[in-house]
Parts: sequence; C-alpha cells; structure tokens
Amino acid sequence: MAGSNFGKNFQITTWGESHGKGIGVVVDGCPAGVPMSEAVIQKYLDRRKPGQTRYATPRKEADEVEILSGIFEGKTTGTPISMVVYNTSQRSKDYSEIAKYYRPGHADYTFDKKYGFRDYRGGGRSSGRETIGRVAAGAVACEVLKSLGVEVAAYTKAIGGVVAEQEKLFFENIMKSPLFMPDLEASERAEALLEQKMKEQDSAGGVIECIIRGMPAGIGEPVFEKLDANLAKAVMSIGAVKGVEIGDGFAVAEAFGSTNNDAFAVDDAGEVRKKTNHAGGILGGISDGSDIIVRAAVKPTPSIARDQQTVNCQGENIEIGIRGRHDPVIVPRAVVVVEGMVAITVLDMLFSSMTSNMEDIRRFFGR
Amino acid sequence: MAGSNFGKNFQITTWGESHGKGIGVVVDGCPAGVPMSEAVIQKYLDRRKPGQTRYATPRKEADEVEILSGIFEGKTTGTPISMVVYNTSQRSKDYSEIAKYYRPGHADYTFDKKYGFRDYRGGGRSSGRETIGRVAAGAVACEVLKSLGVEVAAYTKAIGGVVAEQEKLFFENIMKSPLFMPDLEASERAEALLEQKMKEQDSAGGVIECIIRGMPAGIGEPVFEKLDANLAKAVMSIGAVKGVEIGDGFAVAEAFGSTNNDAFAVDDAGEVRKKTNHAGGILGGISDGSDIIVRAAVKPTPSIARDQQTVNCQGENIEIGIRGRHDPVIVPRAVVVVEGMVAITVLDMLFSSMTSNMEDIRRFFGR
Amino acid sequence: MAGSNFGKNFQITTWGESHGKGIGVVVDGCPAGVPMSEAVIQKYLDRRKPGQTRYATPRKEADEVEILSGIFEGKTTGTPISMVVYNTSQRSKDYSEIAKYYRPGHADYTFDKKYGFRDYRGGGRSSGRETIGRVAAGAVACEVLKSLGVEVAAYTKAIGGVVAEQEKLFFENIMKSPLFMPDLEASERAEALLEQKMKEQDSAGGVIECIIRGMPAGIGEPVFEKLDANLAKAVMSIGAVKGVEIGDGFAVAEAFGSTNNDAFAVDDAGEVRKKTNHAGGILGGISDGSDIIVRAAVKPTPSIARDQQTVNCQGENIEIGIRGRHDPVIVPRAVVVVEGMVAITVLDMLFSSMTSNMEDIRRFFGR
Amino acid sequence: MAGSNFGKNFQITTWGESHGKGIGVVVDGCPAGVPMSEAVIQKYLDRRKPGQTRYATPRKEADEVEILSGIFEGKTTGTPISMVVYNTSQRSKDYSEIAKYYRPGHADYTFDKKYGFRDYRGGGRSSGRETIGRVAAGAVACEVLKSLGVEVAAYTKAIGGVVAEQEKLFFENIMKSPLFMPDLEASERAEALLEQKMKEQDSAGGVIECIIRGMPAGIGEPVFEKLDANLAKAVMSIGAVKGVEIGDGFAVAEAFGSTNNDAFAVDDAGEVRKKTNHAGGILGGISDGSDIIVRAAVKPTPSIARDQQTVNCQGENIEIGIRGRHDPVIVPRAVVVVEGMVAITVLDMLFSSMTSNMEDIRRFFGR
Repeated sequence: MAGSNFGKNFQITTWGESHGKGIGVVVDGCPAGVPMSEAVIQKYLDRRKPGQTRYATPRKEADEVEILSGIFEGKTTGTPISMVVYNTSQRSKDYSEIAKYYRPGHADYTFDKKYGFRDYRGGGRSSGRETIGRVAAGAVACEVLKSLGVEVAAYTKAIGGVVAEQEKLFFENIMKSPLFMPDLEASERAEALLEQKMKEQDSAGGVIECIIRGMPAGIGEPVFEKLDANLAKAVMSIGAVKGVEIGDGFAVAEAFGSTNNDAFAVDDAGEVRKKTNHAGGILGGISDGSDIIVRAAVKPTPSIARDQQTVNCQGENIEIGIRGRHDPVIVPRAVVVVEGMVAITVLDMLFSSMTSNMEDIRRFFGR
Repeated sequence: MAGSNFGKNFQITTWGESHGKGIGVVVDGCPAGVPMSEAVIQKYLDRRKPGQTRYATPRKEADEVEILSGIFEGKTTGTPISMVVYNTSQRSKDYSEIAKYYRPGHADYTFDKKYGFRDYRGGGRSSGRETIGRVAAGAVACEVLKSLGVEVAAYTKAIGGVVAEQEKLFFENIMKSPLFMPDLEASERAEALLEQKMKEQDSAGGVIECIIRGMPAGIGEPVFEKLDANLAKAVMSIGAVKGVEIGDGFAVAEAFGSTNNDAFAVDDAGEVRKKTNHAGGILGGISDGSDIIVRAAVKPTPSIARDQQTVNCQGENIEIGIRGRHDPVIVPRAVVVVEGMVAITVLDMLFSSMTSNMEDIRRFFGR
Repeated sequence: MAGSNFGKNFQITTWGESHGKGIGVVVDGCPAGVPMSEAVIQKYLDRRKPGQTRYATPRKEADEVEILSGIFEGKTTGTPISMVVYNTSQRSKDYSEIAKYYRPGHADYTFDKKYGFRDYRGGGRSSGRETIGRVAAGAVACEVLKSLGVEVAAYTKAIGGVVAEQEKLFFENIMKSPLFMPDLEASERAEALLEQKMKEQDSAGGVIECIIRGMPAGIGEPVFEKLDANLAKAVMSIGAVKGVEIGDGFAVAEAFGSTNNDAFAVDDAGEVRKKTNHAGGILGGISDGSDIIVRAAVKPTPSIARDQQTVNCQGENIEIGIRGRHDPVIVPRAVVVVEGMVAITVLDMLFSSMTSNMEDIRRFFGR
Repeated sequence: MAGSNFGKNFQITTWGESHGKGIGVVVDGCPAGVPMSEAVIQKYLDRRKPGQTRYATPRKEADEVEILSGIFEGKTTGTPISMVVYNTSQRSKDYSEIAKYYRPGHADYTFDKKYGFRDYRGGGRSSGRETIGRVAAGAVACEVLKSLGVEVAAYTKAIGGVVAEQEKLFFENIMKSPLFMPDLEASERAEALLEQKMKEQDSAGGVIECIIRGMPAGIGEPVFEKLDANLAKAVMSIGAVKGVEIGDGFAVAEAFGSTNNDAFAVDDAGEVRKKTNHAGGILGGISDGSDIIVRAAVKPTPSIARDQQTVNCQGENIEIGIRGRHDPVIVPRAVVVVEGMVAITVLDMLFSSMTSNMEDIRRFFGR
C-alpha cells in the first residue's frame, strides 16, 4: 500500500532512500501567497544535518534543498511544492556486509519479510535520512503557522535518564546546547553521559518535547480525527519513537480526578483560561486554547560498535560488530523532525476545522 | 471536517450521541463469507456495558446490538455492516444544569468553541457511549483476525499506581477480575484503592495493555502508515487516553543500545526469532513476527462529586459539584475499546500489506 | 475494500440492501447550526419514491426517513447525521428463482464473481433502493448549499430519443411533468413512448441534466481533484449511468476552437462574465462563476418481462422472463439522485477550496 | 486542498509547472520486484512528446525522464518511485503579455479567482505539460498490469467529426498513424481536416477510446468506488476532457432494454461470457470479464491564432490573437495520457479488490 503520504487538506508525500540519488517531498495543499524560499527551508534542514557536533555522525552531507515547483516570485502559488536534497556522500561506501545479515534494532529483517527484496544500502527507506522530507515539509508548515500566530517549538527533554528540569528550561537556550536541551546544566550532564557511552561503544535514548503556542481553541475533530490522535500518529511515525504522550501523559495513570482536572477560570481580560494544564491543551480531542504539549520517547541508536548476536540471510546464528561511526544518540537530530511533524499535523487540523460552523462558512463566502 | 471515519481498506464510521436515539457504526470493507451474528457482537459489547460491577456506573443500559445490513444467512456479504444500539435510559434525566457551565476535564468548553453550539445532554459525541460503535466494529475485526490465526487481547495493567506484575499476569484470569486485571492479587489491591477513592468522591487513572499474537511478519508500511503509527492514532483517539507506548515505550529513554536491541537468533525449527522483545513486535513500523505490545495511559474519570472550580457560560467563576454516580475509574470498561481499536488497525494493515510484493500478487490472481 | 464512502470534508457513508432491514446513510462533516429536520429530508426522498406514477413500479414503500443522530433542537450539531429508511414491503416476495440465474444487465454475475456469495434478494446492494442513502445525504447538502446561495436543480433532458428542447425548458415546470421533464410537450411525447414500451414488455433509457446556479468562481482543485472530475465520479457511481458530460460534453469532439471557446467580457456591473457557456461553468477543473452544467446518460431498465437468454448458476444456457412489474424507465426516479450526488460533490469542493489563499485563511482566523 | 494525489493503494502524486524547473511524479504503493527502468518509462513519454509531427507544437523538449528513487538493481523496491522530467526550453519565452489578460478556454481566470495569484508562465499547473507526471506513472501501472496479463490500449477514435470505423480499426495500426488513429483511411481524412483548420488559424476536438483486455471479473467496489466511477474521475481529470463514456455510453439514452441488455451464454470451454458488450465490461460497477471500453471527449485546443475577445486584468474588454504555434488538436498527444490514467485506476482497483472474499484472504496468508 501507499504509505508515504500524510495529511488531508495539507498533505505531504515523501520519497527517497539514503543511498539513492536523493531524498524529497511534495507538499500539496499549501495556500497561495506565503513567502517561501530555499533559504527559509534550509534553516530547518541545517538543524538535522550530520557532522554538526561530536554527538552526530561526522559523515559530511551538505543537505542542500532545491525547490523544484510551487513557488513563483518568492511566494507559494497554491500548487505542489516539490523539494529535493540530492545525496552527495553515498557513493564510495561498501554495504556488501550489511546486505548479508539482519542488524538488531533495525528494519532489515522486516523489510525482507515484507518485500522479499531489500535495498540494503544504509537502510534504504528506513534510514534516518528519510526524515529530510519531513523536515522540509515541516518548515513550510511552520512558516504558514507563524503567519497565523501559532509557534511550534521542540527540544530535548531528556537523554539517558538526564532530564531537563522545567524551571531551568528556557526556550532561548535551545540553540545554545549542542543537544538542543534548553536546561544548560542538564545538557552538560547529558554530554558527559554520551562521552561515556561512546567509550563503551554504546548509545543512549531520550525524550523530545514539543510545545505549540498561540493555538486557537476549537481545533480537532471528535472521535477519530482528534488533534491528539493525529499528533500521536505523526510523532509515532518517526523512526525510533516508541511512545507518545499529551500533557501529563503516562503520569495520569497514577493521578486522581481531583488532581488531574484543570479548573476553568475567567481571567482579568474576561477570557476563559485553565488554571493548570495537565491536559496538555487538548480536551475531547479539540484544542482548548492552552499550550499544546506533546512528548516522544526515542530509543537508543541501534547501530552500536559493540559485538552483537544476530542471524544472517542464510539463517545462521552469527556475531557482528557494526563498523563505522554512528550517532551515539538519535534525540538531538530528531528534535526538528518532531517539530516538523507536529507543525504539519496542527496546520492540517486548523484547515480541517474551518468548516465546523455554518456561521463561519457563510462569513467566509460573504453570503 | 468529517472525523468519524477510520481505516482505509477495512473502514468504520461511527455515529450517535449519548442521549440521542442511539449509537451506531457502519463497517465497510469486511470480506464476504465471515460467520457473523448479533450474539457474537454482543459478547464484546457486554464487556463495556455499565452496571456490571460496583466500579462502574449503575445506570442500566441493555446495550443490545441490532445488525441492520451486510449479513445474509449468517455470513458477511462483503457490503457494509450497519449496527445500532438504541439508547434506552436517557429520557428522564435533567441536563439543564450541565448546559450552563463547563465541566473541568470534559470537552464542554472545546465543543462550544468549535461548533458555537453544543448538545449538552451527557456529553453528546464526547461521551463514553460513543465507544459502543468502536467495540461493535472491533468485534467484527477480532472475528476476521481469529480466522486468520491472529489473537488480540487487552487487559488492565495498572490502576492508580497498583501495577499487575508480569510474572503474575495470566491471560485466563482476565475475566475473573472485576477490573479485567489478570494479576488477581493486584486486582484486589486496586479494588481497595477504588473503594477509598469513592469515599473521597474522587477517581483514579490507569494503564491498559494489549497483546497481538500470531501476527505474520512484514505487516505495516514504511514512513507514515507504519503499524505503530496507526496503532498510536487508533488508541489515542479513545477518550481519556493521554499516552501510547509500543514495547518498552517510554522506558527506552533511559535504556542503552546494548540493552534495548533485540538479538536475532535461529530457533530449533529454523525460524528467525528475536531473543527479547523490547521493540514490542515492530521494527521500522513493520511487524517482526513477535507479539505486538501496545499500552495506553488512561486519565482518571473527570466527573467527580467533589467541589470543583469552573466557569459558566456567562463567563463567571463558579463552584460546582457534579451530581449523580459516575465510574470511579475509566480503565476496566475501556479495555475492550482498546482491544477493538487495535484489532481494527491490525486488520486494516494486514489487508493493506497484501500488495507489497509482485510475486504474491501474481500468485493471488493465478497469473 | 471499503466502497460506500464518498467525499473528503463533507463525507457520506451509505449502507443497506433492498431486502434487508433498511437503507441508511451517515453524513459526516456537516457544519453545526444548519436548520434540519425529517420533514426537510422527506421532501427529497418523496421524489424518488416508487408508486407515484404509472411509469414507476407500483410497489408501495412509505420510504419514511428517521434521523437518529446529529440534530439537536432543530439544528445540526456538527457531528454525524445518521438517517435510516426501514424497508417495509420486502417480506413476502419469493426470490428463489432470481437466485438461480444471472439477470442480463444486472450485477448478479459480477457480485458472485467478486464475493463468491450473493444476497440475491432483489439485487442486494446493487438495487435501486441503495440510492435512498444518496438522496437523504444529498438533501442535507442541498440545504447547506441553499444557505450559501447555491442552487442545484436536476431534471429529465431526454427519454428514448425524445429530447426536451432548451427553449421550451422552464424550471418551474419540472414538478408538473410526471417524468420531471420541464419541456411539457416533450414530456407528453415521452409518456406516449413509454406506454408503447410497456406494451412491448420493454424499457427505455434517457438523459438527466443538472444545473448548479450561484456557484462562486474559484472552486475545485487543479489536476486530480478537479470539480468536473469529482462530478464525473459522483454521477457515474449511480447505478445505470453509462456516461457523464460537462457543458457541451461529447459535442466538443466535433467543435472547433473558434466556436468552442467562451469569450470573456466585462458586464455593466464591472463583473467578468463569459458570453457563452460551452465550458459548462468549469475551466481547468475550477468553477468560473457561470452555471455549471452536468449531464448523465442512463441506460434502459434491465429488468424486462420479455424473454431473454442467460446462464444459470449451474452454468447452463437458459431462457428467462423476469416476472413482476418494473419501472419502464429509470430516469425520472434517478433525477433527484443525480441532484443529490452533484450537491454533495459541490459542497465538499466548496469546503475544500477554503484553504486556497493565505489571505482568506488569515481573515478567517482573525489573525 | 491537496489535489495532486490520485489512488488509494496504488497512489500517485504529481507536481510541477510548465515553466518551472521540471515536472514530476511520485508513485507510491507499487509492489516490489517489478522490472523497471528509465528506458521503459521513456517509451510512454515519447508518445506525448511535442515536435513529433506537424500536428503538434514544434517546441522541442527532450522530455527525458530520470528516476530518483524506488528502483534497485533494475527492480522496484516497493517504496516510492520518484521521477522527474526537467524543463529545458522554457527559458527564453516572454509571457508578459499572457500575464495581462485571461485567455478564453484556459484556466487563467479561474486560477486568479482561486489563488488571487497566478504563475502565468505558459499555464503553470494547468498546462498540458502537467500530464508528463500522469504518463510516467501510467507507464509503471501498465508494466505491472502486463505482468498480470492485463493490457490497456488507447487510440484516437475521432477528430473533428472524422470517426474511425470499428471494422477498419486494427490495433497494430495505432502507431502507423501520426494521429494514433488505427483506421488509416480515417486518419488521412483527419489529417486533411487538420491542415484546413491550421490554415484557418483554428483547432479541432475529438474522441479517445481506451480498451482494457484480460481484466479478471469481480474488480470494482459497489456504490461509490465502482470501477466505472473511478475511471470517469481519472479520465475527466485530464485537461480538455469534457465527457466520459463506458461501453455504449450516451447511446444508451436512445436504446431499449431489449437491445441494450447483454445476454449471458456459456461458451464451449464452459466459461460464462456475454454475447454482446453494450455494458463495456462493467456491470454494477464491477468488471464482468469482457473488454472494458472507456471513451473521452476532448475539446479543441483553446489557444488559436485567430482574433478573440476577452478581458484583461484591469477589467477592460480587449481583442487578442494568441501568438506562437500551438497544437491544432489535443487528441493525439492525449492518447497516452488517457491510457496512463486508465491503467493507474484499473491497477488500484485490482489491488483494492483483493480483500473481497475471506476465502481468498486465508489462502493468501496460508492460514
């Protein structure tokens, strides 16, 4: 089945393998008249580019985006925006060994079972490079959202048990941490942990948090197209994500109604507000006007240099050590991927919610 | 936007409010030739029926399903299966008070913001009764899966911090616990906790776990239509769910590659197996042949008798106490809802995966 | 695959067989606040009800619609509108004979090939009664469109070669003709033709035309979601329709650019208008502000009393005569079905087009 | 809304403007293991390439396809196939004049109304070059269909009133006619007509017919996802198409049941066959095993050199003559576009129909 398409009214389609000619995305349903350029998109892509810090693979990829359609005289035209990042450093490497066995924690085995056939060069379609398309499309969504006063910001919440404390977490510090962890003290401790893991030929997992600010109330559809349901799918579809939470998330399992309910109150401006935000900005699948809070659990990089046991394609038990250098942690480079997927989802739901109310529709058409 | 439709090749559409004429579902895309009857569906519905134990609302609803189409001579015909449960006890109650304010933790405020208009009778479309349609459709999916050798089983994993221990958890005990918690010792402690909360006019949250056994490897689509991504959406779309996990879930954030990777090994029968199952049966969004493990965090019932602060529709701060008796915990009645949504998702993905491989397609068409 | 669902933002799901318990539809995505009642829907259904004239089967069906959800205090709530028409006269009839062979021109053979199984009672899901769901949903769409100033009107354009002439065609006469043919002279000739065909135990085909007035310009999406492409699918999905045209339709094959192009001109009010409307109101798949004109070719009723040759389920050549009285022409009762499907499509596309332009979106959200 | 995406299980997404960097398509849902190469795709593209005959614009475009993903070692991998054709001759031309007014018969006016903004270079997204993506994707679909024994062939049925006679129409002659009209006598007459129209600075319309051979019975879904309904959408979505017919099409309007019904008969091999094929291979929206016949009415090229009246963007009535040479007829180059869209639709429906019957599904999974 087709599985590379996401969204209803704002829709993206990604393509490309890590070691093919390139990676790309088609963004369809972006309204006309939004200022857009390669420079704008590139800023987002640079946040996931390898080789930036010592906690990311030193493989050098320029990852330069080229816009092939949908922009005219610096603005979106309303028609599909096709973007491509050509692969540049995939040529020389020898993947003949990887082709012979199933790497633990990777999709080698499941792709073989599914397709009876596998593009073994660096993971093919299940490679981390697949996220380039998501980030480029996410950049478009973020720009549209900004012009509607909605801001989406993701950051590293935890790495290997080192957690950014809420009170020390300042958004303006996100870019100051090589791990995009805005509690700079925790960031330093996480760096030390990663140094240790690298020495041990091991890797660490973590948590990414994403906040949406300025979201109008009333966005999301009851029952299946709930805002949180779509956010869950969007975030869980990112490779290595094993859990998704909204607001207090799994902590609600140990909470009680009296502590978990958010009381409503009228503020000085006469606006209805919640006094707390355990719900993470979503009630009944619909935004309530508070900040929306999403969290993703990211597993440790499965490619580790340490010896591991596995099976080769002849069905024999073997022991392997995965050569080459790999990111000791996936989290920092995945931050902008989460941000992008959240933005795409939120924008799509904003668009979908425009037909909730007959009065608004009549007003829209001036009838 | 339309939001009451779920699935691609096996597709369900639900309708109905808690206090309208009834609740129903249309199941479209069910193959022809599957034995089906109201008695089969009813067994699943009885598991979510109110009034069964003292931890559920004593409101009596027969919740009897009627099949209106799609079955002929005891078998599915391949055309839509329409099912309805008529509401029977919704008549007398007075909802005039609820109409006047926004209940904390409920969707009253967000529905008003979205539609400018609200069916205030018992929550309308955001009521727990909405899940009747999911359970009836889930029953159909479970029956189809069974005939393919795939079993889906959900149960209560935790309530208010009382957790069923893995080693004491026996599937055959699920129905012996009034809370559907198959560690019977933990179940008793959870009951005691609930008694306490009821005295305190409070409520508790918990965790539901669902296991899928007998799933073939190779099911799920790369990138956006991953099996785990669709499970996340399916489960998060259930009211009161605030988090979803696959396999080790959020625990991966504190794990390391060396402990989180599942080694492959060839078993005595020559089959490739994983020695452990941290991944929860899904690698790269595709089933790996192990048990699939999904977990949902369920918030405490928001309707509590205790005094709470909120705002009325005139925008004034008020204090309320929600009258009537409500479930002190949502978890047990939601178990079969999780099971149903998981079954629907898994079946849809099984169907979608039938076109992965040209060789299989040629074999199917005998060409 | 699921095939009973139509539309994206305004979406309908139909169910039911001609001889099951009933026929129904779920309308999802209807905005909140639209006045709606069973009486409103019934008016549309009455136009396709059997037993109205001598050119329709005398089988008596009340075809009374019941609304089960989605309406509160006389207005739509924004949640799914479930409607059902219970079958009342299906009980006594004996279908044992039809079960034994394949009726020419019917879907008996193809259903058997598809499902390996058939609900042989009166055509099951391929019966004309299936259109009840379309008409009820179409009624909802028409009402929403009316409140936006868009009028949809269908009528009989031709029966068995008798064509309503454009200059004698007055909308106000549609209901005065038992055949819904607004050229009353042609209507009389068509009646005479039908009398003749009934005597000959034969049936006639015809053409239905549908006009959409008051449509804003700019509705429809380039490439695949063109307004005309969706209208073509909507109309061709109606049983017995074998062709669909927009504007001049097949006549363009013999036209030349100089005669087929519609010149633009500014009218006295300063509005851009087309001087002619060969295009039928759609250019590049997008409405141009003129009347939209759609035409459907409807085949003769395949159930005729005359002897016909066919094959039975044992694979033997046999001769049959289909008993019972059947409509000598499908066209008049299909008029309101075409109207409904066109209305559903147009409304869905109106909703989808609300996100074409960033400026309009900002205005909508007041940002 | 997103409008550049077509298909459910076999899905395509096109992008690109006539005068941007290129035109492309992403094919998602193609099974793994199908032999595929640029050379295979190019053969289809060459059939729509300009500059081939004197009845097509002499504008030289190499229109060379490049495959960017989804193929590994000469076979499809099951992941998205991204293809691009870079524009090469778009640079020099001056479109400043076209930008100033609305060309009759073109989408200039409707794009402006929709987006408030237009890429005026050569029609942007409504240009004939948009069909490159359809043809490249159609080539993939045709190759998959061939390996399942299904052949799709389109050809010119009529131009400007000159009709290919059924008895003189031989498939092997399609490529011998510069107009792809397999009745070579009619082809010559049509050429003469086009010479005449070119002298008159005018253009002609025509009809394209497409035949699908070897289609299994039982493909298509009742009600909305009928095979004919999807074919109608697919074909009507092609620019310049104003009508679609199946089998006898509009002729059924003047037929009678006794002449229009196709009698079933058992042939010598014991197979059920239809003696005639008025239905065009589809009964109740489901293939009946006969040839499937689809026809499209194509309007005359709207760009004609002759003087025409229109309106400029300042809202003034003006007279224009469209400079440059344009195809005097759209039909021949659209033949392979119709073939492609039909193939995509048929393949998608073949895939969708694999879950019609429980017995087949069990057999597929070996359970």
